[in-house]
Amino acid sequence: MDILKDRILKEASVINSGVLKLDSLLNHGVDPQLTMEMGKEFAARFAGEKITKVITVESSGIPVAFATAFQLGVPLVFARRKKTLLGEPDAYIERVPSFTKGIVTDLIVSRDLLNADDSVLFIDDIIANGDAARGLIKIIEQSGASISGIGIVLEKSFQAGGRTLRELGFRLETLVKIQSLDDNTITFAD
Amino acid sequence: MDILKDRILKEASVINSGVLKLDSLLNHGVDPQLTMEMGKEFAARFAGEKITKVITVESSGIPVAFATAFQLGVPLVFARRKKTLLGEPDAYIERVPSFTKGIVTDLIVSRDLLNADDSVLFIDDIIANGDAARGLIKIIEQSGASISGIGIVLEKSFQAGGRTLRELGFRLETLVKIQSLDDNTITFAD
Repeated sequence: MDILKDRILKEASVINSGVLKLDSLLNHGVDPQLTMEMGKEFAARFAGEKITKVITVESSGIPVAFATAFQLGVPLVFARRKKTLLGEPDAYIERVPSFTKGIVTDLIVSRDLLNADDSVLFIDDIIANGDAARGLIKIIEQSGASISGIGIVLEKSFQAGGRTLRELGFRLETLVKIQSLDDNTITFAD
Repeated sequence: MDILKDRILKEASVINSGVLKLDSLLNHGVDPQLTMEMGKEFAARFAGEKITKVITVESSGIPVAFATAFQLGVPLVFARRKKTLLGEPDAYIERVPSFTKGIVTDLIVSRDLLNADDSVLFIDDIIANGDAARGLIKIIEQSGASISGIGIVLEKSFQAGGRTLRELGFRLETLVKIQSLDDNTITFAD
């Protein structure tokens, strides 16, 4: 999506060679019209997959996942992040590290909201090392649902997350790939 | 919104006389089409207010706030919740208690995303005691922006939050008011 690349070049700032700050576009501020275009794009790419649910992880994945679910006409589920001490019998839980926050949290999805009949599209804003993605995939697998695809707005190609998911056999679609943030410069992969 | 009342009666469960579980509708699972109708309703009610930004608090307010911002054609900002040890010079911060979680968190909004020229509509999913709402209002006031209105999907009228905001002079619009959850029964206020 060229429009998205233009906005990233205008509004993002490179914090260091691993971290891009996208506050005004993805993870703090949101342009609803642009986000709806992203949702349309994902809905078109996965149109043949008979998706029954879109799933994401709170919080910054919610707007684009909502837009995609709206375009597909299916429910959205967002996994909650929290610390569980004793587990929750009514929920699927996976413990995951967070690359940017440097902490461990539990991803939680209520058993009521995901079941073996579901064909799930996982949508998120950014993939770096893919820890949250792998946690959410384990949750979907726990439920018996099938994972029909993964859509990520921005892939940092120089980190392993996207490659790992493709090697695991998942269909991963990303709207923008960033090859490098070295020298304070955003270099796209294509 | 009668359609929303019907869905609440069908899908919500009363945990105790203070807490309603709405996992499939608001705070964990989302019906995008119904949520877009809520956004249309808020956009219509505040159409005359020249809103420049919609603001909410992560996470469960994000879908309906996104839908409202989309309908109004303005940016969305969602306040982040986290613990800050030393403060953040580039952000507005307010410490607030959470009624349902029993913890204290900081609400954070980047100074880049809110300024004195903004006319802000605050949208959220539920108001109980209104602690998060008052924290977010303080953040908006810190920025110098004006608060043009507050839209809440579900007001628990038996708790003080909504009444307090009206007494402070804010224009508060709610889509559904719940008068009581006593005896495991949802009683609407109107």
